[in-house]
Amino acid sequence: MATSFSVKFDISDEPVEVPGGTLLTDAAEKAGIKINQPCGGQGRCGQCAVQVTSGQVRRRSTIRLSAEDVEDGYALACQTVVEGDLKVVVPPQEKIQQHLTTGQLAADVVVPSGYDYHKDQTIQRIPVTLKQPSMEDQTSDWARLKTAMLQETGLNEILISLPILQKLPTVLREGDWKVSPVLYVENGMEKEGSAEVVDLLPGLIPENIPLWGAAVDIGTTTVKVMLVDLISGEPKGQATEYNAQIARGEDVISRIIFAGKGEGDKTLRSLVLETINELLERACQRGKSCNDTIYKTILSGNSTMIHLLLQIPPSSIRLAPYITVANNIPVMSALEAGLRTHPTGKVICLPGVASYVGSDITAGVLSSGLSETEKITLFLDVGTNGEMVLGSKEWLVTCACSAGPAFEGAGVLHGMRATTGAIDEVWINEETKEAAWRVIGDGKPKGLCGSALISLLAELLMTGVINKSGRFDTSLDTKRVRKGSHGGEYVVSWADETEIDEDIILTEVDIDNLMRAKAAIFAGFSVLGESVGIPLESVEQVLIGGGFGQYINVEKAVQIGLLPDMPWERFQFLGNTSLKGAYLALLDLKNQQEISEIANRMTYIELSADNRFFDAFTSAMFLPHTDMTLFPSVKIGGDK
Amino acid sequence: MATSFSVKFDISDEPVEVPGGTLLTDAAEKAGIKINQPCGGQGRCGQCAVQVTSGQVRRRSTIRLSAEDVEDGYALACQTVVEGDLKVVVPPQEKIQQHLTTGQLAADVVVPSGYDYHKDQTIQRIPVTLKQPSMEDQTSDWARLKTAMLQETGLNEILISLPILQKLPTVLREGDWKVSPVLYVENGMEKEGSAEVVDLLPGLIPENIPLWGAAVDIGTTTVKVMLVDLISGEPKGQATEYNAQIARGEDVISRIIFAGKGEGDKTLRSLVLETINELLERACQRGKSCNDTIYKTILSGNSTMIHLLLQIPPSSIRLAPYITVANNIPVMSALEAGLRTHPTGKVICLPGVASYVGSDITAGVLSSGLSETEKITLFLDVGTNGEMVLGSKEWLVTCACSAGPAFEGAGVLHGMRATTGAIDEVWINEETKEAAWRVIGDGKPKGLCGSALISLLAELLMTGVINKSGRFDTSLDTKRVRKGSHGGEYVVSWADETEIDEDIILTEVDIDNLMRAKAAIFAGFSVLGESVGIPLESVEQVLIGGGFGQYINVEKAVQIGLLPDMPWERFQFLGNTSLKGAYLALLDLKNQQEISEIANRMTYIELSADNRFFDAFTSAMFLPHTDMTLFPSVKIGGDK
Repeated sequence: MATSFSVKFDISDEPVEVPGGTLLTDAAEKAGIKINQPCGGQGRCGQCAVQVTSGQVRRRSTIRLSAEDVEDGYALACQTVVEGDLKVVVPPQEKIQQHLTTGQLAADVVVPSGYDYHKDQTIQRIPVTLKQPSMEDQTSDWARLKTAMLQETGLNEILISLPILQKLPTVLREGDWKVSPVLYVENGMEKEGSAEVVDLLPGLIPENIPLWGAAVDIGTTTVKVMLVDLISGEPKGQATEYNAQIARGEDVISRIIFAGKGEGDKTLRSLVLETINELLERACQRGKSCNDTIYKTILSGNSTMIHLLLQIPPSSIRLAPYITVANNIPVMSALEAGLRTHPTGKVICLPGVASYVGSDITAGVLSSGLSETEKITLFLDVGTNGEMVLGSKEWLVTCACSAGPAFEGAGVLHGMRATTGAIDEVWINEETKEAAWRVIGDGKPKGLCGSALISLLAELLMTGVINKSGRFDTSLDTKRVRKGSHGGEYVVSWADETEIDEDIILTEVDIDNLMRAKAAIFAGFSVLGESVGIPLESVEQVLIGGGFGQYINVEKAVQIGLLPDMPWERFQFLGNTSLKGAYLALLDLKNQQEISEIANRMTYIELSADNRFFDAFTSAMFLPHTDMTLFPSVKIGGDK
Repeated sequence: MATSFSVKFDISDEPVEVPGGTLLTDAAEKAGIKINQPCGGQGRCGQCAVQVTSGQVRRRSTIRLSAEDVEDGYALACQTVVEGDLKVVVPPQEKIQQHLTTGQLAADVVVPSGYDYHKDQTIQRIPVTLKQPSMEDQTSDWARLKTAMLQETGLNEILISLPILQKLPTVLREGDWKVSPVLYVENGMEKEGSAEVVDLLPGLIPENIPLWGAAVDIGTTTVKVMLVDLISGEPKGQATEYNAQIARGEDVISRIIFAGKGEGDKTLRSLVLETINELLERACQRGKSCNDTIYKTILSGNSTMIHLLLQIPPSSIRLAPYITVANNIPVMSALEAGLRTHPTGKVICLPGVASYVGSDITAGVLSSGLSETEKITLFLDVGTNGEMVLGSKEWLVTCACSAGPAFEGAGVLHGMRATTGAIDEVWINEETKEAAWRVIGDGKPKGLCGSALISLLAELLMTGVINKSGRFDTSLDTKRVRKGSHGGEYVVSWADETEIDEDIILTEVDIDNLMRAKAAIFAGFSVLGESVGIPLESVEQVLIGGGFGQYINVEKAVQIGLLPDMPWERFQFLGNTSLKGAYLALLDLKNQQEISEIANRMTYIELSADNRFFDAFTSAMFLPHTDMTLFPSVKIGGDK
């Protein structure tokens, strides 16, 4: 019989006793903790990683964990067995899907080939050895340092700020007149330009010591932070978390309204700062850095998120004529911006285009390659709003349609975000009309996330449970279709199968909301195409960004008329294009400048003032569309 | 019989009852308040001004008060009688000698002829009317404003900071798209340059509404603030106060030592900020302004004062090789500098040259006209240190000799600053060797201020009470010369005549300290002249700046060898040349740039490393000098 060991989880009050050889996931369950296992405990997804801070374990697999992670005690809970008394930290990331390891990051974000820190980077560490002052050379500390740096760099001017002047004499003497200033070279090192000292480090620091920067994507729902070594260009840590503003409104409109009441703007600012600063700290722990040594942060996000972050009143975004206070935000110090990085480090908000086409889109256009391709390309970011860009290296048009948050689960009775317990895929049997589904985390379902809603709508349509208008066929011989308080409804999951002890259903009101959302997005495509005289079928590729994009089933999205009907190979899912764009801008000034050029080049079409949009929207309020010739591949089985 | 009235002074707990027709000075005395009357109550000096905030008075004279002052209730306490129940505010300036009225200011500081706000001033208020946004013109608020400002000004670039962005949408709508931005145009309006928005005011503000700036002179002992309307160029209010740092050390050296201990640097910073901020408020009260509307502040002061103000560690100033951390301080925001002016307003420290030649001297060189004159000129600022500049428009050499604070009353047994109760002039009868003296405020004496020390030393020498070595002739038939615990001493004032109930004396130790101080200064002259091969007699004018300079009796200063022996008409007293220089830089960018050029042009000679200085110092350790041919006009009566 196996010896018994005590396992103490940080988020549980009491340790649990388990026999040796018990899986950490089982030990956690005994302690009342549910660890997310999206892959079903097969050791494939890496989402169940925990940190063993004390005691002996055996890892059956360390897939998706780096050697450093393992050294730090990280272990896959579903693949690791207890071999001694343990202390285990459950990282907060179990709450949401997120990348865990630098290994995974490398798959998503690759250091651009040819990245050259010395040429491309605006943050430069310049070790210099100074001549000691003497009675024959009474030059002041700052003039002495400045002269040496100008000689070393060939720059024309170097500025210093008060906080750095205050530490200057101490650092110079501490390093015995050897010092490594960190410079921010706004316009790059290649030209004869000017720079600002953002930090001073004693001694001559060799180049193999990292120099830190951060890329931050501020989503309405989720905030992502990536820590990057600016010298090698490598991402070294990443962290994701809900935007704490969620508690004050799910979408941008409700946040703008909240910001306008009393000190709502102040509250929202501190909430998102809290999230970002916590993520910076978490990313730094993973990257073995310290947030005080981050010297440059690049931020991307929709225009409302940027306004709220900086407490710039956002109300004009919501009211006609829908304008921002600023699409171009001045470069700030971290202190000014409220970020807990190095206080005199730089914070740069990438430029947006309009109230509903923010820097998440301009950054996305850069990272998607749209602005450099010869192909006619449609770039799409579906979230609360559907933002889209049509164009190529020659031209760019953009619009945003207020699709509403239906595909994020809001405005749908059993809608929810894509977290543990959400059904993310549904299949309906053509004969029996019975449903089968998959749940994130493999537990009992709590509701339906966006990808499930697309699947479900498509399956209901293709199996004839609903018609093109989204109405239920109540003549069908199945208990799953019934009349509810909101009109017709379909039962996806019976109460006894669910976590919430009630039937999970989709109602006609839900369907109506989903149809409005998809119709708004498709109408956006139509207007963009029309405005430049390019029919949708001429689009050579469709690039889909945004967190939600990753989980869309193209076939089903086409079936409901959310995406245009074209060969699947023309679709590409790019993941978080906004964060990738911020990462690219963080590394290379040319990318940052390119994003500004993209913002300037983009022609914005205001849909709320465009009659074509209303026409296109009305035409798209069928499944998949009133004009079936636009969807030749969609053959509706239950068509009557 | 006169009716009796009640007079309540703000600094007294209880009102006093006095008959109608009583002078305010007498009423004050009855209330236990001593109001400073340097001119002896003759209504000439204006130093006894108080503010009658309620009740009826009759002013016999309003000399040195402007019409506005009188309207505000200001009255000369020595010239004003009670005619009703009164409330009276005693301004704190009664503590020290200072200018009181804008009328007096005008005599000191004159708006330079040809001052043109539109061309010369770096702070510009630019009223613009914007096109309202519409669905056809969705330009962001900031882009809309920026475009209009660029058109209006012809500038190339205009930047904005976060605090201004935060108020932008509200101000634009409050002013119905009419707005008056306040710009800081670092390099002037004439060139196509860049600017920064430092404030936004709703509506179109006409040019007759003042635009405020401040000039501040931070002395080791005294801080002076001048409030200036940048449009007319006129000084509108001035205030003076002791530097609150005095409580932590009388001279720069003791302050540097204090700054190095624990949080001493923080303490000193907040003390001087307290002084400056209080003075700004006081000046604004007088100028009918509000310190939040001051958009530019120019600071001058010695290098230690500037370091301490900004909490830049000053210890290297004190230790060989005596260097500053910085002579050129970056332009700061008021928030950063700690000044309570408009938070995004600019604070500019004028550049210094070396540890002991600060911006008080470079500003002084500008305002004295030295840098533009054809004449060989010696500029001198005697305070704790003797800073001096020799030169003309062609060349400038400078040095500082640590004269020590003897002439400010420190290091002298009965020395004191030039405040109420200080003897400021002494005469000795050649026959009887009896002393006569004058006291500031006309009360009983408390001690001897700097000008009295010079007089006394000269009189003692000229009447043969001391010899050229500063030793007393103890053979004289007078009780005033006696042997004390510090060697020989002279009684200036007997205990029963004094406020301090003890004899006010000058000892041989005091004399030694004074001789060291004057010898250091004269040695400075010698080395400066020698270094450029110009004998002192070739100097065509001697310009004396600094608060102390105003009270020096040239004849007596020459007699003791403090000043070189030359015709009196070559000497000029310029008053506070540092504040005047800051005022000129505040008005006109060209002046500010000229001060930078002066700082660059000045050749600094380090005396502590110069053997010529020690030789010259030793030679000057006699009264007036070992080489009497240098002082042909000095005929010592009691010469033996």
